[in-house]
Amino acid sequence: MLKKSLGTIMVLAAAVAIGQDRTVPARILPVPTDVSPQMQAIVGRPIPPNFDVVPQTIAEWVALQEAYNASVVQALPGQEQRLHVTVEERRMAGVTVFAVTPDRVAPENRDRLLIHIHGGCYVLGGGLAATTEAVMMAGIGHYKVISVDYRMPPVAYFPAALDDLVAVWREALKGYRADRMAVFGSSAGGALTLEMVLRLKELGLPLPAAIAPGTPMSDLTGVGDSFAANAFVDNVLVSRASACDPAAQLYAHGHDLKDPLLSPIFGDMHGFPPAILTTGTRDLLLSNTVRTHRKLKDAGVEAELNVFEAMSHANYSVDDTAPETHQAFGDIARFFDKHLDK
Amino acid sequence: MLKKSLGTIMVLAAAVAIGQDRTVPARILPVPTDVSPQMQAIVGRPIPPNFDVVPQTIAEWVALQEAYNASVVQALPGQEQRLHVTVEERRMAGVTVFAVTPDRVAPENRDRLLIHIHGGCYVLGGGLAATTEAVMMAGIGHYKVISVDYRMPPVAYFPAALDDLVAVWREALKGYRADRMAVFGSSAGGALTLEMVLRLKELGLPLPAAIAPGTPMSDLTGVGDSFAANAFVDNVLVSRASACDPAAQLYAHGHDLKDPLLSPIFGDMHGFPPAILTTGTRDLLLSNTVRTHRKLKDAGVEAELNVFEAMSHANYSVDDTAPETHQAFGDIARFFDKHLDK
Repeated sequence: MLKKSLGTIMVLAAAVAIGQDRTVPARILPVPTDVSPQMQAIVGRPIPPNFDVVPQTIAEWVALQEAYNASVVQALPGQEQRLHVTVEERRMAGVTVFAVTPDRVAPENRDRLLIHIHGGCYVLGGGLAATTEAVMMAGIGHYKVISVDYRMPPVAYFPAALDDLVAVWREALKGYRADRMAVFGSSAGGALTLEMVLRLKELGLPLPAAIAPGTPMSDLTGVGDSFAANAFVDNVLVSRASACDPAAQLYAHGHDLKDPLLSPIFGDMHGFPPAILTTGTRDLLLSNTVRTHRKLKDAGVEAELNVFEAMSHANYSVDDTAPETHQAFGDIARFFDKHLDK
Repeated sequence: MLKKSLGTIMVLAAAVAIGQDRTVPARILPVPTDVSPQMQAIVGRPIPPNFDVVPQTIAEWVALQEAYNASVVQALPGQEQRLHVTVEERRMAGVTVFAVTPDRVAPENRDRLLIHIHGGCYVLGGGLAATTEAVMMAGIGHYKVISVDYRMPPVAYFPAALDDLVAVWREALKGYRADRMAVFGSSAGGALTLEMVLRLKELGLPLPAAIAPGTPMSDLTGVGDSFAANAFVDNVLVSRASACDPAAQLYAHGHDLKDPLLSPIFGDMHGFPPAILTTGTRDLLLSNTVRTHRKLKDAGVEAELNVFEAMSHANYSVDDTAPETHQAFGDIARFFDKHLDK
């Protein structure tokens, strides 16, 4: 009996005919001991009690935008000061952008420029809130960064964000060679990074020399195993019941969610520039990050993957004092340095 | 109220002071739709009902070895036939090995040799069962492979496995240059791959030109967030209550589990050869794979990471007809081709 039952453990023999849905029992998720104290505080945050409250009217969406952005902006002065970065609002081709500049631009980065695309489910994170990840990249990587404050609902809908990104790109090409520029961003910003490359390919415009799509919202159709496996494990997005997918749908404005310019996992990634992807083991978008990594590799693209221990969605861009934040942006900076011309 | 509660979602502001343990509720884990039918069958297997039955006597361990190995060996003839590989038992420096040879060795691989270290929690998977992953590597990558049937309990205990691996390595060095050899293996075999390099460093012996530690048991002390996060999500190892950790402790034979030759995460990885690591999003050892990847990178080692959608522990070496199996071993083969001299 023992022999027979234990023989079923880890058996490498042929699979049973049909897979089955399974129920995963409730269990305790302790604060991990193998991450920094800063990261323990972040991954140990409780699930927001009203995570599944979704705005029902434009007024409620705007209220959410304001509350979200205010909380992000609050942390900015400290981040800028610690990382020795200045932020300056500008216009490029009619689009609001923020020039995010470190006190010390690395000598090899003098003729290089990074374009940053903020996250926030295509609806949140605009205005100065756009810059938080750009500040980390500029300060840690010693690059000049342009963070694009692309239009979002209710001001404008799909494909307004992409139109703004392409306009900024055309403008950037007047001052910088494409092979000295890279594009990066997380979550919706990771998806927009991929969508922007798809769009530049369509338009026959020069592509950036490298990209860093962080934990991209690469599939809005609900496919991706970690939507189930990491539900309530991730304390940021929590589950598909949060406001994030509805926000993306608000942006999509009735457009087919399978359009590669909304769900880039369905796009043709042949010819893409080298890419470095970042996620965490608890990330609700872990699957959609690794699926994107696989799709890039299958298209012959040089693609690197970093998965950080115990991190939920985009936890690597929360606290600039966490060593993991420096590892994440340090790896991206080195990847860009390897692939951008000087 | 809506404004205040929703503002807590995805807030990027400073962390709360102290992290908290959390309870993850029970939930349904559907069969993923974005993997091959073969992989759906594998990841959709039910949890083995007696997964947590642990042998209590040597006789029960031996019974488990026999049951496990028999089920693995059953699948071998079909695998060898489909992949056009032959397996031949030999002795090298007194150690039993299996020469696993594809009908067609790629021209660039004529003077190259791979050493394979089987998994099985340091106790299971010996004899012919050792060869299953070697067959896939030989057949998919067109490399010559030596799979080492290292001694295990109750025949011998720590550090017998390492002694055997080093003896085989010394013997292999008589016929092949170190810069034309690589070492690979999964689970305990992934840990032993890392431990072998640590041991070769200690001994001042030449190192392999590349390694591929698959989902390594790199930490036997219980640290690793996915032990909790992927408990009952992984249908292979299931949880730390399975027989796998007790098996490793049986091998350790009272030795300190923090010894880097048992838990290589505690070892000094400076000077390691380039490494490619493989795991899956549902893997109980997801964390210990990504922690190893990070540790290698922090030591300045070129290290690549592949995380396969929805796979539990070492699911990539189950079914040689699954396209994901070909992706996993194909990537390892290309990585070796890049790093091994011709």
